[in-house]
This record gives sequence, structure tokens and C-alpha cells, in this order.
Amino acid sequence: MKLICNKADLLNGVNTVSKAVPNKTSMSILECILIDASSNEIKLIANDTELGIETTINGTIEEKGKIALDAKILTDYVRKLPDSQVSIECDSSLKTYIKCDKINFTLIGKPADEFTYLPKVEKLDSIVLSQFSLKEIIRQTIFSISDNDSNNKIMTGELFEVKGNNLRVISLDGHRVSIRKIELKNNYENKKVIVPGKTLNEIVKIIPGDTSKDVTIYFTGKHIMFEFERTIVVSRLIEGEYYNIDQMLSSDYETKIVVNKKELYDSIDRSMLLIKEGDKKPIIWNVTDNNVEVKINSIIGSLNEEIAIEKQGKDLMIGFNPKFLMDALRVIDDENISVYMVNPKAPCYIKNGEESYIYMVLPVNFTTVS
Amino acid sequence: MKLICNKADLLNGVNTVSKAVPNKTSMSILECILIDASSNEIKLIANDTELGIETTINGTIEEKGKIALDAKILTDYVRKLPDSQVSIECDSSLKTYIKCDKINFTLIGKPADEFTYLPKVEKLDSIVLSQFSLKEIIRQTIFSISDNDSNNKIMTGELFEVKGNNLRVISLDGHRVSIRKIELKNNYENKKVIVPGKTLNEIVKIIPGDTSKDVTIYFTGKHIMFEFERTIVVSRLIEGEYYNIDQMLSSDYETKIVVNKKELYDSIDRSMLLIKEGDKKPIIWNVTDNNVEVKINSIIGSLNEEIAIEKQGKDLMIGFNPKFLMDALRVIDDENISVYMVNPKAPCYIKNGEESYIYMVLPVNFTTVS
Repeated sequence: MKLICNKADLLNGVNTVSKAVPNKTSMSILECILIDASSNEIKLIANDTELGIETTINGTIEEKGKIALDAKILTDYVRKLPDSQVSIECDSSLKTYIKCDKINFTLIGKPADEFTYLPKVEKLDSIVLSQFSLKEIIRQTIFSISDNDSNNKIMTGELFEVKGNNLRVISLDGHRVSIRKIELKNNYENKKVIVPGKTLNEIVKIIPGDTSKDVTIYFTGKHIMFEFERTIVVSRLIEGEYYNIDQMLSSDYETKIVVNKKELYDSIDRSMLLIKEGDKKPIIWNVTDNNVEVKINSIIGSLNEEIAIEKQGKDLMIGFNPKFLMDALRVIDDENISVYMVNPKAPCYIKNGEESYIYMVLPVNFTTVS
Repeated sequence: MKLICNKADLLNGVNTVSKAVPNKTSMSILECILIDASSNEIKLIANDTELGIETTINGTIEEKGKIALDAKILTDYVRKLPDSQVSIECDSSLKTYIKCDKINFTLIGKPADEFTYLPKVEKLDSIVLSQFSLKEIIRQTIFSISDNDSNNKIMTGELFEVKGNNLRVISLDGHRVSIRKIELKNNYENKKVIVPGKTLNEIVKIIPGDTSKDVTIYFTGKHIMFEFERTIVVSRLIEGEYYNIDQMLSSDYETKIVVNKKELYDSIDRSMLLIKEGDKKPIIWNVTDNNVEVKINSIIGSLNEEIAIEKQGKDLMIGFNPKFLMDALRVIDDENISVYMVNPKAPCYIKNGEESYIYMVLPVNFTTVS
């Protein structure tokens, strides 16, 4: 194999596919990027068997062939090259020469036939949305998935649900639910898949996020594939039935408050100073007519503040895990938000009128502090 | 005590003095910032007994007094307050109320009389230079002090040497020496002191670094004091006799090369990819008429590159710890640099014509690679 390309194109390509290289693995071929110049295009591929990424870069193929190279060494090395032409050449003994100006780097590759290509995904069932929308909807929900240590595999992914011209993305971890809904330009057949959180975290990093450029998402029974520009990302889906979210949601409330988001956020942020990691102390809101009084008492000191609100319904005292509230507030762009509560034990909802976002947080038991 | 000040002034003050709060200490009073409003000024002071910082902030004293407050809690809390007036009030039981708008924070302070004030420094012997120059001269030398675990206390500091209208700052760690020299506006009496590296690292963080604003440095037998704007930093000096650097320096050479700094830096940077942390493999330069050939061979692969140079004197093959070269190159602003070498065992010098900088690096033994 011998190919010539630009340093910038090559770097961009290896950075993109590197996101599918596992940090820790006992299979050294998984630590590699496959450079496949066996057809008329230069393809870079990485695949950790759950998640695979393939991208095509510009360049000239002088001799067809392919080679697998250690992803970390390749990426670090290409990053440090001058902005110039790079040639990559390998011989039958897998010895690979990467040259740029007067710089010659030699390393030993791995045989391309040990490499697992991306699964073939049939392009039958798809939706289209802007890169920006996809990035946003993931960012606005991904924080409330369960981490990978979770016993419950389904909670480590997000539900992607298409109904007509709506895409709804949902995550939950047993204490809270995050729901975002956006309108698509076209109508599609209904579908529901559970996408691994890891895949979505990597997608967010490699999609440029243009509002004017689209992503096509393809669905099969076992896989989801994201296609944008010259890159495809294929991921296994999580098998199983997702929770029936609509059954959990309720629009009944006893107390509704409208509050400035930044003031509420800053108040929770301050209260977290008094809570040491892991001591699970809730913040307590005392909701009265025009005020929420926020109270917290700890060994560090005590904090007491008032936030102006507009209230409908009953007075209420309720406790929350402050982190859960902050996670939701951080991804809401509205200046003022509405919070719907029933009683100190029932779920609380932060949502807007059109329900393009719904953040449900379970309250926490508390003992009244003086 | 009761005082009122701006959040921004207070934050700036606590951030500045916090640099003298030790990370780990068994004496809880050292973790505090003293707020001293016992005279007509509001002073914030922190002191870890080696290094002390005092700054004066604007504000109104409604009732004189003083209190010591936990530095970390105070800093974090003030940072999270809205931009508004802050009042700090404490009663005789040390209960301290920090109020801002409708936010009330209560914590327990420590008695001010447990706090150790900064040592009194006589303002007899001083020099003046710009904040910018002081920051630069520290940044350009501090990397080659020995770390604090070093057995040799003297190597953990920098020599500040004043001769006439010259300030020379020197650091060394047994493998290399860094020397920077600047001209001062005035002539001063000769002096030499060894300033702890920790003090200098903190000074760099808190000096704004204006070219148009000055720092006055005061010297006594045991202390050094930096005074700028409304802040003073007092540090103990390291006792002992510094190395006789001039005896170590030599201007004899057998080989001199002039090379583009960026090209040389990038080449060393690439070569470090092939060296795993701690394996102490040198990079090898083969200096010939118009080229330095850089060679490195490791289990990862091999790298070979050529850098254009202008050479005077003999050909030479010499090995270096690449990190030491990079540290020096990083703080040299010249486009082209001169490197003076004698033989593979003698010190190598990177310096400019007027010797405003001299970086000496000892070479490393190497076995010739094919």
C-alpha cells in the first residue's frame, strides 16, 4: 500500500475514528485504526465491536492495500507533523513508513485481515435532522442515564422514539427522567430503539454540529447508523423493552411556581457548598406565596436565602438532591422556568408549555430543620 | 466586626491571599483567611508561616474587629454570590454572617488572635522592576528548580542576584542550569538571595503582569517581600550559599549550530512519542555540515529526521534528555537559536549573543544505534 494525503485531512480522520478505539482491551487489534486503500478511496476505520466509525479522507492512492496501525501512536504522531503532505507506505512484512518532509517514521503494523469491519447496515429505514439538533438533544438528556456499572442495561442507554414528524429522546436513572422532543421536517414510520450512552457521548464529540448540515440516522433491528459528511458511525442497540414513560408522566399538580432560572441555579449551586460529597443531604424549599425560601444546615454552616417566584396553588415544603436539579437547569435555555409539584413525596416536573422538554425529579425525604 | 464591600473586590482579595493557604496542614488556623478590619482599612491575610500574603480591599467598616474564616469555604462561597454588596458581620461568639441581597450565610470563624501575622519587613533595601518583567523572568527559569522532595534545599529555590543595574535569576537541578538576566532602571547595591520556588510559583499567579506597573522587592537577611498595588507577599529565604555559577560557565566550544527554534522543538516533541515515561532513552543528534540528523529507535518504532542548520566547527554525535531541551526551548522567544557544544560529555549551552539567557544542559550517554 502507498498513499499520499494532507496532514490536516489525515489528522481530522484519525481523530474522528479514534473515538471508537477502546481505552482498555486485551485484543490489540482493537487498539488499531485500519487504513483501507484497497478500493479507490482512502478509508479509516476503528471498531470496538459495539461501536464502529468509518471515515473517508482525500488523498492519492499510489498502490492499493491496507494496514492496521496503533491508533494512539498514529494520532499522536500525525498531530505533531508539520502542515504538509504525508505519505504512508507499507510492505508485505507490515513495516510501515510514514514520511512528511524530511521526517521518516517507521513502525510495524498489524495484518488488516485480523480487523473486524463495521457491520453492514441496510439503508431502508431512516430519519434526517440537522447536526445541531442531534447534538443538542443528546446533550440535553444524556446526563441522566445510569452509568455503565448499572445492573440495569436499559438505563445505560437513551430511548430514541420517532412518531410521525416527532423525535423524542428519553433517559432515566431511577431518580429522574429527562425528555426532549423535536419536530422533524418529514413524517416517518413509528419506531423505538435504545441507543447506548457511550455511542451518544462519542457522537456528540465528532459531529461538527452545523445547523445547516444534516445527519441521516438509519435503523435496523440490531443497529443504528449515523451518517454525516464522509463519516458513518454504527452502533449496536441495547435489546429490551424501554419503560413506559407516558404512564409515569402526570400533568396534575398542587403547586406551580415560575422562577428565574439563573437565580434558582445559582442558589442551588451555593447550597452545594455546604454539602460534602456523598452525605446526601437534600436542599429544602419552603414554597410560600411570592418566595421560595431555601434552607440548608450542615456542619460547615447554614445558608438561608429567598428567591422571588410566581406561585399558583398550595404552599409546600419539599426536599431535593441539588445535583439533579442543577443537571436539568444547566441544559434549559429559557430565562424563566415552571416547576410543577404535588406533595413532598410525588415527582416534580420542570417543563415548558409545549412540553418540548420535561425533566422529572423525585424529591428526597427530609427532616425539618429549624 | 461589621464591614460592607463589593463582591468583586472581596473575591479578588480572597483569591489573591488564598495562594498562601497550605493544601494540607494539621493546624486549622493556617487554613483560614484573616479579615482584619481593626484599623481603618480592610485587610485580608493568609500565612502558611513560610509564605504570607496581605491585601487591602475597598469597603466600609461599620464596626471595627477581625475574624479568621476558612479560606476554601469563604472563597467558594464569595465566587458564587451575585455581583452585589456583601456584608460580613461577626459577634463575640465567632458566629459570622455573610449577607448579599436575600442570601444569608452563617458560619463559625476562628479567633483572630490564633492567627500569625506576616513578619515585619524593614523597607531599607529594595529594587524596582515591572510586573511583566518579574513574571517573565520567573516563568523563564522556574522549570529547572529541583522539586520539594529534593534532599538539596538550595536547589528548590532560585538565586536572585542584583549587581549594579542587573538582575540575574538562576535555577538548577543537577542536570541543567537556567539563567536569565535583565537590566533594571536604577543601580543598586549588590545582593544575592535564594527565594523558595513555591513563593515564586504563587507570585506568578497573583501578579497581574502589567508592563506599565511596577513591583518593589524588599530584601532583609531572612525575608524577601514583593509589594505591588495593594498587596504584599512576604516569604522566608532559603539559607545557605548558592553554587558558584560563573565557575561552571564556559564560552569555549568545538561545535556551534544555529537552528530554527520551532523546527527543533517540533522534532524533539515528535521524538518523545517513541520514549515511554521513565525509560530515559536519549535523543541522538548527528551534527554534520548543514544538517542535524535526529535518530531514535525504540520498541514503538523508529524515527529519523533531518533539520537544516548553520554549523561552525566540528561534526559531533551527542545525546540529550529531550525533556530538558524542550523545557528550555519553550521559554525562548527567538526565531533562531544558537547551540554551543564541546563533546558528547561536556555541557551544552543554548544562549544568545548578549547572554540575556543561558540554558546549560548536560548531555546523556548513549550507545550508537544503527
